[in-house]
Amino acid sequence: MKIAILPGDGIGPEIVAQAVRVLDALRSDGLPIEYEYGVLGGGAVDATGSPYPEATQKLAQAADAILLGAVGGPQWDNLPREQRPERGLLGIRKQLGVFANLRPAVLYPELANASTLKPEVVSGLDIMIIRELVGDIYFGEPRGIETRNGERVGYNTMVYSESEIRRIAKVAFETAMRRNRKLCSVDKMNVLEATQLWRDVVTEVGKDYPQVELSHMLVDNAAMQLVRNPKQFDVMVTGNMFGDILSDEASMLTGSIGMLPSASLDANNKGLYEPCHGSAPDIAGKNLANPLATILSVAMMLRYSFAKEDAAQRIEAAVKSVLAQGLRTADIFEAGTEKISTTQMGDAVLAAL
Amino acid sequence: MKIAILPGDGIGPEIVAQAVRVLDALRSDGLPIEYEYGVLGGGAVDATGSPYPEATQKLAQAADAILLGAVGGPQWDNLPREQRPERGLLGIRKQLGVFANLRPAVLYPELANASTLKPEVVSGLDIMIIRELVGDIYFGEPRGIETRNGERVGYNTMVYSESEIRRIAKVAFETAMRRNRKLCSVDKMNVLEATQLWRDVVTEVGKDYPQVELSHMLVDNAAMQLVRNPKQFDVMVTGNMFGDILSDEASMLTGSIGMLPSASLDANNKGLYEPCHGSAPDIAGKNLANPLATILSVAMMLRYSFAKEDAAQRIEAAVKSVLAQGLRTADIFEAGTEKISTTQMGDAVLAAL
Ligand SMILES: CC(C)[C@H](C(=O)O)[C@@H](O)C(=O)O
Ligand SMILES: CC(C)[C@H](C(=O)O)[C@@H](O)C(=O)O
Repeated sequence: MKIAILPGDGIGPEIVAQAVRVLDALRSDGLPIEYEYGVLGGGAVDATGSPYPEATQKLAQAADAILLGAVGGPQWDNLPREQRPERGLLGIRKQLGVFANLRPAVLYPELANASTLKPEVVSGLDIMIIRELVGDIYFGEPRGIETRNGERVGYNTMVYSESEIRRIAKVAFETAMRRNRKLCSVDKMNVLEATQLWRDVVTEVGKDYPQVELSHMLVDNAAMQLVRNPKQFDVMVTGNMFGDILSDEASMLTGSIGMLPSASLDANNKGLYEPCHGSAPDIAGKNLANPLATILSVAMMLRYSFAKEDAAQRIEAAVKSVLAQGLRTADIFEAGTEKISTTQMGDAVLAAL
Repeated sequence: MKIAILPGDGIGPEIVAQAVRVLDALRSDGLPIEYEYGVLGGGAVDATGSPYPEATQKLAQAADAILLGAVGGPQWDNLPREQRPERGLLGIRKQLGVFANLRPAVLYPELANASTLKPEVVSGLDIMIIRELVGDIYFGEPRGIETRNGERVGYNTMVYSESEIRRIAKVAFETAMRRNRKLCSVDKMNVLEATQLWRDVVTEVGKDYPQVELSHMLVDNAAMQLVRNPKQFDVMVTGNMFGDILSDEASMLTGSIGMLPSASLDANNKGLYEPCHGSAPDIAGKNLANPLATILSVAMMLRYSFAKEDAAQRIEAAVKSVLAQGLRTADIFEAGTEKISTTQMGDAVLAAL
């Protein structure tokens, strides 16, 4: 099982290093994995001129799974569009066809205070957001900025085909079957034809899953309901653009986005795994960042790409045990717990493993 | 000053009736207003076959301001697209060119408990969201659902021109000048060219307002920051689609969306005024709905379309006094307050006036 490791920018290298220690431990215990490193994002632009250089493309395509830290930083913000770090991220997602982005929003009981929401509203929160990741207005053509009647006009195209909707809907229903059999699909069908088709196709796919209770919600209402009563949701599925917004809103409900992993899967469960948080340039290189989201991304990798449920649960249990011991990086620290560094958190997870 | 009154569907007629009592009282006190009624939404479809019939179009075009209840209900959900109630709403917005949608998200101290967020996070919350209302993917062409290579494809066009962005940016900066001179513009410039132009033009307009502290935020981050620390915002400006989502999220932070009014203005301050909430078909006709958002929409009408700041403040003070008296409709009721009906709430506001 080949893993491509792309540490990326900012805190990426630090947090990925801790996740690799976890992978090393599993390998020592007999897990047949090997890995190779590559560059993506701002560092890749600096080194090669491209945020997703060809060597990384080959590496990623040959791998069974990819572990990514995070990309971006202020020093690359003024580069031309095609060289910005996020183009590397969009490029690798699109090229690998990892259309199913799974983003759990889970509140760890030990971290309940971190939420800005009242405890009774979020305690026990456990939502799985499934975001379509390689279609929609992110990649739709035509797009651009041009002059029309003497003024600049910017435009993008939101577009979904039946087959694109069908395959992500299937992932969502299958996920719901393994959880509480409740799926909420989010669209804006009262305004957008693209999402009218979304609702129609999700409804059609739902006929194959009569055990799943399917509901539909408009995106504005979903943004409200996540604040009003997030525990009404179990699995949510939506398009790339709405998913970008709603999954970030949902993660923040937990107050500890430094804990949240993500998986992006293709049709054969090859996957790109990354923490939900960004590259946090302000704390990069200071041994302060929380590596747990990246370590939990490794757990998702073992579960989804390598079907090693046991190993996945072993990692998740280790993370829970570390939290139960009261160990916290700065982002999740509160009075009465012990503040530790990135590497110390890695040590603690390894010890618990 | 001519006002068109469009009670709409569901609870619309009940809440508008209370707002009209307030207008009546101001008229008795010498405010030179007259009004005429029209139909919009589901009721209009039933009566005329169109959600925005010609008679209503004439009425709205001739008026100086329009007061709208709310539109929609399940009985109209399966009508063909062009006949759905919300097409009436989109139609009147577009035809009147009310491009600047002002949506305050204000937490009334008396209702602080209603929020699902911790008191320290939301106490004193007072955000003004300015949403562009007649452009973007809501109205962009081409759009539709068609068959391509043997499968259905749905598509919409996000589009903004320089002049459209410029005029809404001006409203935002002017609003910021009258408040705390802090403006946050929300876009997704790292992915969408249409919003790259948005950022560029807002930045250009900002040069004319050196006293306003302008910041830019990506929409996914904005959705997070509204949950993490909403009080960091004063005035926010964004496009139609992102504004739909973020303004609803922001309203829900207060926990009392039944209190929130909105104004939609054209270039000459002609305006369409409506509560932020919907038509609530489940409680329609039961004398349960909260009329305060509609009454506060009348205050916005007096402020923005009629430049009667005194009268606006008189209404707002009356609403505050009613809350201070402990009077609550069911949606904002809590132990220790007195639960009253829609009409009783109207009585109370009139008495306080
Ligand atoms: C960096 C950006 C292009 C990306 C996205 O919008 O998809 C990010 O926000 C995410 O959610 O992974
Ligand atoms: C009813 C719908 C078309 C409308 C919109 O999306 O603009 C509503 O959600 C709103 O925000 O006023």
